[in-house]
Amino acid sequence: PAQRVASFEQDVWSIFTPLAAETKAINLGQGFMNFGPPDVVQEAAKEAIDRVESNQYSHPRGRPRLRNALAASYSPEFNRQLNPEAEILVTAGANEAMFATFAGYLDEGSEVIVMEPFFDQYISNITMNGGKPVFVPLRAPAHAATQNISSSEWQLDIEELRSKVTPRTKMIVLNTPHNPIGKVFNEDELREIGKVAEEHDLIILTDEVYDRLYYPPLEKFPRIAALDGFWDRTLTVGSGGKSFAATGWRVGWLIGPEHLVKYAFAAQTRVVFCVNSPCQEAIAAGLEASLTQPLFKDQTANYLQKRARLSKVFDDLGLPYTSPQGAYYILVNTTKIQYPPDYSFPEILEQRGDDFKMCYWLTKELGVCAIPPSEFYTKEHWSLAKNFARFAFCKTDVVLDQAVDRLKGLR
Amino acid sequence: PAQRVASFEQDVWSIFTPLAAETKAINLGQGFMNFGPPDVVQEAAKEAIDRVESNQYSHPRGRPRLRNALAASYSPEFNRQLNPEAEILVTAGANEAMFATFAGYLDEGSEVIVMEPFFDQYISNITMNGGKPVFVPLRAPAHAATQNISSSEWQLDIEELRSKVTPRTKMIVLNTPHNPIGKVFNEDELREIGKVAEEHDLIILTDEVYDRLYYPPLEKFPRIAALDGFWDRTLTVGSGGKSFAATGWRVGWLIGPEHLVKYAFAAQTRVVFCVNSPCQEAIAAGLEASLTQPLFKDQTANYLQKRARLSKVFDDLGLPYTSPQGAYYILVNTTKIQYPPDYSFPEILEQRGDDFKMCYWLTKELGVCAIPPSEFYTKEHWSLAKNFARFAFCKTDVVLDQAVDRLKGLR
Ligand SMILES: CSCCC(=O)C(=O)O
Ligand SMILES: CSCCC(=O)C(=O)O
Repeated sequence: PAQRVASFEQDVWSIFTPLAAETKAINLGQGFMNFGPPDVVQEAAKEAIDRVESNQYSHPRGRPRLRNALAASYSPEFNRQLNPEAEILVTAGANEAMFATFAGYLDEGSEVIVMEPFFDQYISNITMNGGKPVFVPLRAPAHAATQNISSSEWQLDIEELRSKVTPRTKMIVLNTPHNPIGKVFNEDELREIGKVAEEHDLIILTDEVYDRLYYPPLEKFPRIAALDGFWDRTLTVGSGGKSFAATGWRVGWLIGPEHLVKYAFAAQTRVVFCVNSPCQEAIAAGLEASLTQPLFKDQTANYLQKRARLSKVFDDLGLPYTSPQGAYYILVNTTKIQYPPDYSFPEILEQRGDDFKMCYWLTKELGVCAIPPSEFYTKEHWSLAKNFARFAFCKTDVVLDQAVDRLKGLR
Repeated sequence: PAQRVASFEQDVWSIFTPLAAETKAINLGQGFMNFGPPDVVQEAAKEAIDRVESNQYSHPRGRPRLRNALAASYSPEFNRQLNPEAEILVTAGANEAMFATFAGYLDEGSEVIVMEPFFDQYISNITMNGGKPVFVPLRAPAHAATQNISSSEWQLDIEELRSKVTPRTKMIVLNTPHNPIGKVFNEDELREIGKVAEEHDLIILTDEVYDRLYYPPLEKFPRIAALDGFWDRTLTVGSGGKSFAATGWRVGWLIGPEHLVKYAFAAQTRVVFCVNSPCQEAIAAGLEASLTQPLFKDQTANYLQKRARLSKVFDDLGLPYTSPQGAYYILVNTTKIQYPPDYSFPEILEQRGDDFKMCYWLTKELGVCAIPPSEFYTKEHWSLAKNFARFAFCKTDVVLDQAVDRLKGLR
């Protein structure tokens, strides 16, 4: 095998999603919905399946209808008229948008600054393309060990970020709303990050797949590409699956200036050639509908209610957590939970963070699957994750209530 | 941009597919159908869209139903019981299966032997993963300049292939039925190629996306992985889009021994994470139906008739061509076609093979789009392609007849 690939560990998703299924645990692990896309989106998908042309190769940049709908939906977000011919690229999910961007911009030894914790796929996506991830921490305040905090309290030390830049640095990866923390970077934070990029002429790749999911008191989702001066160096990643409850459709996008989209596109069309056509039509229909219907507003209200529904049990149990400003994950401190000291774990969990054991036990014995966040840390920093578990609330109320019932068993 | 990506030329597809659309030419260029998937497949897609679970992330190896259907459909083809848990990987189209295999097995400087002409994406897929393509020609006989030949007359010199192996060679790429030639390698040819791989312990990556499309007198499609001794070193690529007239669905697969699928999988799940879920269900339904209904037999009969329909006009015009044993392309010698010597071509065709000009003129002025085969040759060998054009017959009879009418204008 290739050296770069031979060293990959099995990822957390392929351990916990099957485990949840086998054990019939309630799955608050991997972030997919147990409900479907809105009717208008589902109907549009079926219509597209019925039309000959929308089952064949799409334009390599993405179907015109989807690029037009993205331009209509996102132009106000970026305070500029987006050009669907050059500034928008449809990708095979957001993950592939990131992969293609790394492929388009990294050479052997290029460095990419990534905040830790990080969504795990970033790292393999960088190293597969010859790059080297360089980490800078997001830190929780000390009182997070004993009380609930807002995800806004997780902080980046901007001087620490600045100190990580070397002559080989090409890019800073930003993730807002952040997975697994839920932090939504505010404009001041974004400006400071952007300034570092400006000082050293770096590309900013911002993963904003949860951009439609942020909660009051936030009224507007701050985007670094929309702030004065940063558009020209920023590529923004978005997700049809996260926006419309269709994570299995693999429709994502990349938005940015023509000169940056250009080489991500050159790479992307070689990696996957093009993207699933009928589901592109359906996501386009969803975006079109969102221009006149409060789809996203209703969705947010729903998720806000779900956040409360799940948070409450952790309050009741006295397990401190980070309340997320965006996305749909709650990072919970599990220090108080004890599993039997003689409990026997499968070998596959041996070379992993201790939180893998906790989450295995929660899945198998309590019947609620959660994700061990050490997946999102370098091995060096696994200890920072060892007393945590990530619970997803992108589930129906019925399922959330069942999970809550089982979690009460921890009392 | 990354060095590897900066040098990519615009590909032929993004020139000719839009050109055909703009000029309202009849598009016999890119190999997509202007008809849809079989009803059973289309209905299954719509059913899948209606089920919550089949709109979410699929298992990273592919949905169990599809892997089971592939095992049922392909086990007889390979003379062995395929294990859907380990020997089958669902990919985001066949192209991404190849990309992931290169990612999984190539290191910087690894050499991959590729037959020329080649499907163009192979080259970028290899170089993006640090590999170096090494070319060995398929040669047409001299009389092909003046008379029709069968694609079987295109020959590989096996000693020439053998001479290309170096200590850095990792892989041989095979493509059967071959695009653009239509050649179906026979068992003797496959055995000779396999022996070279065996002598030097090489992986064989065989692109068999047109495996359901081969014509009498061929009764069985020969697969190198089914021949004695080669299974263990072979990865076979297949395509839902080509098999079921749904090129825009991006569902492909990789079949091979566990130890080889392993690292393609490790790479693949990082590149795209997983594959469009509802269309996986639909392709599964198609494969299931093919076990009891003559779907593929009927499809072949249809394409055979289409091959005759289109070939006839080249016979009438006295333009010699290669009659394909498989796939749906006819490579036609265009020497006798003259465009006005003072015709003015757009700048974009300047640094290209002369056949780009011929195909441009055919598209724009005759109203029939064809693909210039120099796209499938290294620049060094563009002259071999300069008098050829590739016409696709994966179109309805109505459209083929319209194309024939226009082509008659060449008389
Ligand atoms: C690879 S899973 C995609 C992201 C997500 O859903 C998660 O973090 O759970
Ligand atoms: C990149 S197009 C895929 C293959 C094909 O359809 C062709 O060769 O025309």
